[in-house]
Amino acid sequence: MPDNDRERDLDRFLTFIDAIVAIAITLLVLPLVELTADLGEFDTVGDLLDEHQTQIWAFLLSFVVIARLWFVQHRSVRHVLRYHGRIAQLLMLWVLTIVFLPFPTALVAAEGSSAVTKLLYIGSMVVSTAVLTLLEALLVRHPELTDGHDDADPVDGVTNVLLLLAALGISIAVPATSYLPLLLLLAAGRVADGWRRLRGRGPRRTRVGE
Amino acid sequence: MPDNDRERDLDRFLTFIDAIVAIAITLLVLPLVELTADLGEFDTVGDLLDEHQTQIWAFLLSFVVIARLWFVQHRSVRHVLRYHGRIAQLLMLWVLTIVFLPFPTALVAAEGSSAVTKLLYIGSMVVSTAVLTLLEALLVRHPELTDGHDDADPVDGVTNVLLLLAALGISIAVPATSYLPLLLLLAAGRVADGWRRLRGRGPRRTRVGE
Amino acid sequence: MPDNDRERDLDRFLTFIDAIVAIAITLLVLPLVELTADLGEFDTVGDLLDEHQTQIWAFLLSFVVIARLWFVQHRSVRHVLRYHGRIAQLLMLWVLTIVFLPFPTALVAAEGSSAVTKLLYIGSMVVSTAVLTLLEALLVRHPELTDGHDDADPVDGVTNVLLLLAALGISIAVPATSYLPLLLLLAAGRVADGWRRLRGRGPRRTRVGE
Amino acid sequence: MPDNDRERDLDRFLTFIDAIVAIAITLLVLPLVELTADLGEFDTVGDLLDEHQTQIWAFLLSFVVIARLWFVQHRSVRHVLRYHGRIAQLLMLWVLTIVFLPFPTALVAAEGSSAVTKLLYIGSMVVSTAVLTLLEALLVRHPELTDGHDDADPVDGVTNVLLLLAALGISIAVPATSYLPLLLLLAAGRVADGWRRLRGRGPRRTRVGE
Repeated sequence: MPDNDRERDLDRFLTFIDAIVAIAITLLVLPLVELTADLGEFDTVGDLLDEHQTQIWAFLLSFVVIARLWFVQHRSVRHVLRYHGRIAQLLMLWVLTIVFLPFPTALVAAEGSSAVTKLLYIGSMVVSTAVLTLLEALLVRHPELTDGHDDADPVDGVTNVLLLLAALGISIAVPATSYLPLLLLLAAGRVADGWRRLRGRGPRRTRVGE
Repeated sequence: MPDNDRERDLDRFLTFIDAIVAIAITLLVLPLVELTADLGEFDTVGDLLDEHQTQIWAFLLSFVVIARLWFVQHRSVRHVLRYHGRIAQLLMLWVLTIVFLPFPTALVAAEGSSAVTKLLYIGSMVVSTAVLTLLEALLVRHPELTDGHDDADPVDGVTNVLLLLAALGISIAVPATSYLPLLLLLAAGRVADGWRRLRGRGPRRTRVGE
Repeated sequence: MPDNDRERDLDRFLTFIDAIVAIAITLLVLPLVELTADLGEFDTVGDLLDEHQTQIWAFLLSFVVIARLWFVQHRSVRHVLRYHGRIAQLLMLWVLTIVFLPFPTALVAAEGSSAVTKLLYIGSMVVSTAVLTLLEALLVRHPELTDGHDDADPVDGVTNVLLLLAALGISIAVPATSYLPLLLLLAAGRVADGWRRLRGRGPRRTRVGE
Repeated sequence: MPDNDRERDLDRFLTFIDAIVAIAITLLVLPLVELTADLGEFDTVGDLLDEHQTQIWAFLLSFVVIARLWFVQHRSVRHVLRYHGRIAQLLMLWVLTIVFLPFPTALVAAEGSSAVTKLLYIGSMVVSTAVLTLLEALLVRHPELTDGHDDADPVDGVTNVLLLLAALGISIAVPATSYLPLLLLLAAGRVADGWRRLRGRGPRRTRVGE
């Protein structure tokens, strides 16, 4: 029964990918743990937290970013049944962007206003989202890899990539906005649906995280 | 067969959540590993252990805390069969409290008597338990997500949250009690059963860790 | 179908336990990674390796120790089908000994000849093995939790515990033997089979790692 | 049904192995995260990246190396259905080479031109690949462990080992080539097919990552 065989392979591969994401999202806390080594320099724990507010925000922001990217990926592959070399390569490339993210996160905590930091941080998110968009485009052309219920649609991915690029541009051009332009992503679903309507199609059935 | 499809998604999500908890609970040992770098300052290994007793207790305490929170979560979702966006969001929020915990753990080891440390440490446990209580409340209203054998009951969660708040209050008001007020949790099952009896209901069939 | 329900719970729990072990065994490499920060103090990479031979041996030894303990655990639970509170608690206690092990490993690397270090390191192995022995004893009394093919036998566990205690005693009494007395474990299978023969029983069908 | 029993064991073992690899590949980012502690010594984030280019390349190289070795392993075991002690031992030895790799990776970042570093780094890859070759040779002799669709063929593994040894030799003999000789691996598939053709056999059906 070669069908089941494929599924077993895919299952194993997705579990592998998920484990990598799980580790990357947990490693985010390590810089906070190491903060406590500096406790001697502060009068109280409150002072330490005050001084290192940025690191706590960077931790929370990156947790949300990786969680969201995982949900996007989860939606992208949920209907895929068969293991396929190209999909495996794209997911491995995707997970590289996730494994990398703790590094720009540490830069955000230490030197968040630098344009290079913003480029690395938001740039990783752009590449991550672009790779998932390629994956959805691949699935649209290869429905035989899925269970037939797939509603993969590259429009969402392209919308996300464009909004991220806009956020990157605004964040660098108007430094005072810091990383707030990333909130543009909250409008991603509505923008994508509007785009689809312009092209005469209905909204996507499933949303990220659903 | 869309039913199985859902289960696959939920399975994958729970494995992802479990992997994150597994990493967080294991990272607790890292501060102990790093202790050995200070070995040069001590005459013997025994002196090092003596001096850093608090860190070893903090490690053990947090291991028990995360293990217990995992068991509570495990009981909460054991009868859930279908993936649901709101459940996924609550579990992701829950796991954030777990990923965060190694940070207050390090604070407990370094400056455990500080009220801010207690607020962060026990406060994380309060949020963690409150989120699981919301999850159980959601399941009570959506039995169609479960296998029908669910005995989810927010009374347990609310009891835990109240006992944790009491422990937090006592620990801050009477510093000499240190983190011992957390032992109040040992009474959680009995208190919840008493509460249920007052409202004319029997004890919950399953206990945490069973 | 409550049977399947139980199995799902157990599966999830074992995956959780395995993930914790996987992380603990991988964290062993971190002290080696941090060695490279001292590279400036040495003329060549070869000198660094020479100077830190003990750390490399400690890494290899602990890798073998955790791998072996995982195999013992794997054999202990391979026929268990149903989730059971006591088993879960024992396995959680077992995994605590594994999570702890990177700490005595670091002590072995830094101050391996100290009796306290040996007590912590081999002592963790004693507790770890004793807990698995309790687990096997539990399974002998509760065959209904297994698939009926279980050949759990506390004799193996007790043999391992006794050999580990002997190794600990020799290692402390005759420091020159370092950690070599642990090689006594290689004889564990034969000793256990001899013991069983004395009591009129045949050898155990499965060995650790098989 | 003992058949299913075996598969469950194997499944669990492979998930354990995969989790270890997932952690090792993610730990590669930690030295990058720690770079940011030196940020104070540099004028800009750009300067930091310039100065530590080698570390970023070492991270990317090792990510690709571990990903590739995982894919090779994935292909090697994809048709195996039954748990077998010798396979478990070989995979545990294989995963030791993966767990070890973050150490030579850190050496590559700090002192990449050293012959000892090259020996440790490429040598780990040689051992890793050799162990998988032994695994494939074992499967050729024990088709009863597989689903019968296995096309395991030690020729690929031997080719990879020989190409890695060649890369190691060139990299040490001509230091200016740095780690570029590893690109020889890109030709592995073609070389193995050529070798097979010489012996009158067709190309292997599946490639690494497919």
